[in-house]
Parts: sequence; C-alpha cells; structure tokens
Amino acid sequence: MRNIKLTIEYDGTRYCGWQIQPDNITIQEELEKAITKITKEKIKLIGSGRTDSGVHARGQVANFYTKSRVPAQKFKLAINSLLPKDIAVLESEEVEKDFHARFSAKGKEYKYLIYNNKIRSPLLRNYTYHVPYSLNVEKMKKAATHIIGTHDFKAFMSSGSSVKDTVRTIHSLSIEERPENIIEIRIKGNGFLYNMVRIITGTLIEVGTDKIPVDDISEIINSQNRSKAGHTAPPQGLYLERVFYRETS
Amino acid sequence: MRNIKLTIEYDGTRYCGWQIQPDNITIQEELEKAITKITKEKIKLIGSGRTDSGVHARGQVANFYTKSRVPAQKFKLAINSLLPKDIAVLESEEVEKDFHARFSAKGKEYKYLIYNNKIRSPLLRNYTYHVPYSLNVEKMKKAATHIIGTHDFKAFMSSGSSVKDTVRTIHSLSIEERPENIIEIRIKGNGFLYNMVRIITGTLIEVGTDKIPVDDISEIINSQNRSKAGHTAPPQGLYLERVFYRETS
Repeated sequence: MRNIKLTIEYDGTRYCGWQIQPDNITIQEELEKAITKITKEKIKLIGSGRTDSGVHARGQVANFYTKSRVPAQKFKLAINSLLPKDIAVLESEEVEKDFHARFSAKGKEYKYLIYNNKIRSPLLRNYTYHVPYSLNVEKMKKAATHIIGTHDFKAFMSSGSSVKDTVRTIHSLSIEERPENIIEIRIKGNGFLYNMVRIITGTLIEVGTDKIPVDDISEIINSQNRSKAGHTAPPQGLYLERVFYRETS
Repeated sequence: MRNIKLTIEYDGTRYCGWQIQPDNITIQEELEKAITKITKEKIKLIGSGRTDSGVHARGQVANFYTKSRVPAQKFKLAINSLLPKDIAVLESEEVEKDFHARFSAKGKEYKYLIYNNKIRSPLLRNYTYHVPYSLNVEKMKKAATHIIGTHDFKAFMSSGSSVKDTVRTIHSLSIEERPENIIEIRIKGNGFLYNMVRIITGTLIEVGTDKIPVDDISEIINSQNRSKAGHTAPPQGLYLERVFYRETS
C-alpha cells in the first residue's frame, strides 16, 4: 500500500465542517468520493483534525492508503477535476507508511480575520468576523503576550470536548492591522483544544473593547473556567493555514 | 421631494447584475424593495450604471426621490436591516435635486483581480480570475501606457451595445503584484463602454502571455475592431470601486 499526503484549500461556507456525518455534506466526504472514483477503492481519508461548519482552510493536511499506481503528483490534478469549486488539492505527494495526518502533526497555524468597521461588508461576510465597535489593538497585543507559552487552556475550550489533557503550547500569537479595516490574528501552537482559537479571538476582542482588562488574562487562564474567558468568535473568520510535521517548522 | 444618494457595496455572485429584469434577482430590485418598505412609496432607484452578473461593487452609487422625512443618515441603517447579507448601503446622504447618479457622473474607478497560480483557489473563486500560466507583468505595464489617454475604444466594446460615441479617456491604469499571487489592475476613466474593463484586462493578460505584442496595442485601438483585442475577462474579478461626481476627484 502507498501512503499519499494531500494539502487542501477549502471555502468552508457551504459545508458542515470537515468530518463525514450522515445527511450533511462535508469536505472529507467530497474528497473521499473524488479519490474513490480515481482509485476504485473504498478510501478512508485521515485529516489532521476537524474544522467546524463555516471554517476555512488554506493548508489542511490529510492522507490515505491506496494500491493505485497513479503517480503521486498526478493525484492533485485528477482529484481537482472531480471536486466542487470550493475545494482544491494544492499538493499531493507520497510519504512514508507511518505518516499519519493527525498523529504525526507537531503543530498548527491558524489565521483569524476581523472586519473592524461600523458597516458590515457584503464581500467579506463569509470570510471575516464583523466587529462594528472600535478595538484597541495595542491592548489586544499586550493580552496576547500573556497567552503565548505553555498553559492549561481549559478556560479556552468549548464544553462537549472529551479531551483530558488541556495543556498546550502557543509558540506565537500576532495581531496586525491590515489595509481596509482588517485585523489579522495569527496563532501557532503545538495543538489546539476545541474552539480554542475562536475563544482566544473572542477574548482578545473583549480586551480590545475594554470589557476584559489586559491584566485579567493570566487569571482567566489559571481559573480553568470557560465562563471567565470571552465569547466564541464565529467560524467564518477562521482559517487553518498550515499543519507542521517537523519540530523545526 | 428629497433626493437621496446611496453608496453601495455588493457581492455580485448571486445576482443577475444590477438592473431589474423579470424572473431574475438583481441588486437594484433588492434595494428598491427595501426602500419601498421604509418609505411606503413606489421607489425608482437610479444607478450610476449597470454591472453584469457576477460583477462586484464597493462603491456603486444610486439615487432616489422621496417624500419621506426619514433623516438621510438613517436610511443607511434602515435599508441595511432589510437587505440580504450580500448587499449593504455604506453611505446615505441628501443631495441637490438635480443630482443624477448616471448623468452627473464624471468618471469611474474599477479594480480587476487576477489570481495567478497554477492551482485554482477555492477561497478566491468568486472574487478573482484564475490565470494558471505565468504572466509577464512588466510587459503588461508597458501595454497599459498605450491605453492611457483619450482614444476611440470601439475595439474594446462588446457587440450588442448601441452606444454611438466610443471615444473615452482613461486617466490612469495601474498593474500591481500583490501578496499571494494576486495581480491587481486599477483603471480610472471618464466613462467606460460595455465590457471595456474586462476586454482591456483580457488584452493585458494576452500581452502578459506573449500572445499579443506590446507594440500592437496602439494598432488594436486604431483598428476599432473588437476581434483584434483580447478576450473578455470573466465578471467575478471585476469591482466597481468608485463613481466620481466632480472633475477634480
């Protein structure tokens, strides 16, 4: 059996997230259907992790095992020709047998886009979180410094997750003002709890509007209490940018 | 009667263009419906010009006459609360009785976005023209210098237009490489013929791929022959950015 790794971009707007579920269209299902058509095998695609309904990806990673002799590079073009326009394979390559998109992952990078303007933007409605009140970005940057590092992030995990070990390391967390009222948050870490990036974003926004004082961030983390952190920012501003598979990346 | 001017942003993806037509949803219709609900009058909205199906706007301008006493600034919020999420009024203001969104216009600015990468982008599919072959941007810039100025642009007008005077002035035409494989074309002029920006873009792209030599541009213009110019670039890369109402803008 050969092991094929895919790097995938998708617009999550139309989908009920990554993971296959009955009665709803998902990105995993669309990809498995396309690959099955090419290989004539029943394909099980292993993703680096789920993304929720409405969340986008510019570098989701997945792998599958196949007996097909299609050259690894050709899979990209063959799969793309069968996919809907809101999903594309950016790269396809053959990897070692023990590569596992989820268990081999060493970390991930996410981007979150805020549209900070009084009036909502029709063009950005599915690709940003519209925040109509003014944000103090300097305060948000200060708050970010308290989030970077190794902490128990239980306060930043949505209920419903069965994860036991809630300690994670955030390697970097930047907040930049971009042209045309966009605020871009980038966050890299060794792993993320359920909704963690969206709760961090919601908390940073509440710091930016003076609802949460900068100095409370460490206390919120230490509380391990979800109700102390800010709201969960909506899915459409979130992008899975990259999955890392080497410690050095 | 009061005369209200609106500045409008829309995502053209779902619409059959600006202008009302039977059996198809249009942007003008959605706006007229919303305004009629507020004023309880039969509203006729005058746009600065049509946009085609799939074309976007970040600064379309329109005006309407009303007896309503709703403060001009309030129209913005009231209309937005009734519009679908892919249309928004950015500004509403009261203007002189003789202001006419179309006849008073002194010029327009359009933007055209090309996604220049081998693989198509799911996230940008409705907002850029995907050009998978490499483009020589320096040659495109040289070609642009031949298009700037006052010319008879008949060669850059789609058939089906009944316009007689095809002389227009292009004030500026810039081509810039942006991050992440985006090429941005910006064009300002005193007026544009039917599909003129999209045919200019298609022609510039053919210069960028060496299908049309830079030195042929003046000859193409002088030919007044549509078949000499390049293809019509698709609608989803085109944005109406601004409409100018003073000579100095």
